[in-house]
Amino acid sequence: MRFSLKVKEHLYHHQSEYQMVDVIDTLEFGRILILDGLVMLTERDEAAYHEMIVHLSAFTHPHPRRALVVGGGDGGSVRELLKHSSIESVDLVEIDREVVEVSRKYLPGLSSGFDDPRVNLFFEDGIGFVEGVKSRYDLAVVDSIDPVGSAVGLFEKPFYQSVFEALTDEGIMTAQAESPLYDRHISRGMLAKLKTIFPVALPYLSVIPTYPSALWTFIIASKSRHPLEDFREEAAMELDGRLNYYNSGIHRAAFALPGELLRYYGEGE
Amino acid sequence: MRFSLKVKEHLYHHQSEYQMVDVIDTLEFGRILILDGLVMLTERDEAAYHEMIVHLSAFTHPHPRRALVVGGGDGGSVRELLKHSSIESVDLVEIDREVVEVSRKYLPGLSSGFDDPRVNLFFEDGIGFVEGVKSRYDLAVVDSIDPVGSAVGLFEKPFYQSVFEALTDEGIMTAQAESPLYDRHISRGMLAKLKTIFPVALPYLSVIPTYPSALWTFIIASKSRHPLEDFREEAAMELDGRLNYYNSGIHRAAFALPGELLRYYGEGE
Repeated sequence: MRFSLKVKEHLYHHQSEYQMVDVIDTLEFGRILILDGLVMLTERDEAAYHEMIVHLSAFTHPHPRRALVVGGGDGGSVRELLKHSSIESVDLVEIDREVVEVSRKYLPGLSSGFDDPRVNLFFEDGIGFVEGVKSRYDLAVVDSIDPVGSAVGLFEKPFYQSVFEALTDEGIMTAQAESPLYDRHISRGMLAKLKTIFPVALPYLSVIPTYPSALWTFIIASKSRHPLEDFREEAAMELDGRLNYYNSGIHRAAFALPGELLRYYGEGE
Repeated sequence: MRFSLKVKEHLYHHQSEYQMVDVIDTLEFGRILILDGLVMLTERDEAAYHEMIVHLSAFTHPHPRRALVVGGGDGGSVRELLKHSSIESVDLVEIDREVVEVSRKYLPGLSSGFDDPRVNLFFEDGIGFVEGVKSRYDLAVVDSIDPVGSAVGLFEKPFYQSVFEALTDEGIMTAQAESPLYDRHISRGMLAKLKTIFPVALPYLSVIPTYPSALWTFIIASKSRHPLEDFREEAAMELDGRLNYYNSGIHRAAFALPGELLRYYGEGE
């Protein structure tokens, strides 16, 4: 299976300490960030990723103040978190400083939040950063690359246990969980692990046309709040019409799974 | 933008009276039907199309007995209609007999309904077939190719007016309405035309990974019943877990549009 885009200009190509970093300008999807040859985001459809990894938990938590982003060096998740006026601080832990620098230069629409005084950047491994932290964060966003190389540990139980402990009593974690068509065993495995740690763990979907299969799974794992029962719908409706993808209707709809996936994730229980 | 699949075998290639017809066996999506070079369906993801063009209207109508399918020579829409025990007859009007023959031979999982005694096949132009018909059908499924060549008229107001008249008082039409990313003006135009004829006309979405952008718009247009207010949810729940895509949760979720599309379709009003 292959997906191709017409290239206008190759803007950046450099091997960082951790990975090959490319920025390409395309005809139909604007600029795209590529890490080790895999499309991380395109300007045209990144909202379907970043809005969906942030707002479902942020509108479920009663009053999110402190947030953690693991990975997400492009800045998209930080940008979305800052749309919540209750947010007092966002810690971004990105292992590769070069991703942040490239995003600042070539993707200003994503990295716009980095200069906000509420944002703190840490260039280190997310697993080590979270270890030992107790009850600090209301929201944790695991905005990672695929489970290869340095990112493998971000899909493992010890990391999820650290995140659980780093969260406050009403804390909520969200994570990208790969394609439910091509790599569905990954999301099912994540779900099984998270269910042994968090009282609430549910998959939900978004549609990101430039990702493999376009249909994409995210997981929300929560210490007490439920993303449908405790959804702050009225607060979310204030943003309705202002975002590109997320809105109060999409919040509820995202948890509706096609029959095939209902069965697949159900079998993992 | 290009989407490529690994080919196992080229099973059929022939210029019919109307179009080039190809059937290709692929590694990851099974057999695929191609008309004039465009992917019509793949065995792997066709459920997201055929279940979604049929069951939303069938579970909104109180008791669908007579159905019309315009196009849909592969048989997928017929197969889904026959899952409703209230259905007494399905008229399929396909301009190209060769599509039906090829589907019978190479796509038995789709064409399985053609031998059902409730099904009548008509090999003629859908526009002429519907013209002059009065109050005959409870459901009309416009399962057409893109609006090019002989199919252009299926996206025009005179045809929609004929369908309106061919429907019973509680009759409902559904139609595929192209990609909301690449060709969104088509669905907006259809919606505007249908709203001048039908009291209810709403867009809804499905995800078909092998279609351009994967996100796909359908339109439901109804003479009196509303697909959310009059949804026969309990009846739909009897099928939950048995279909590959559609279920009662998906029925409601399909009407939730991403912010960008809410605005776009709203501007057309």
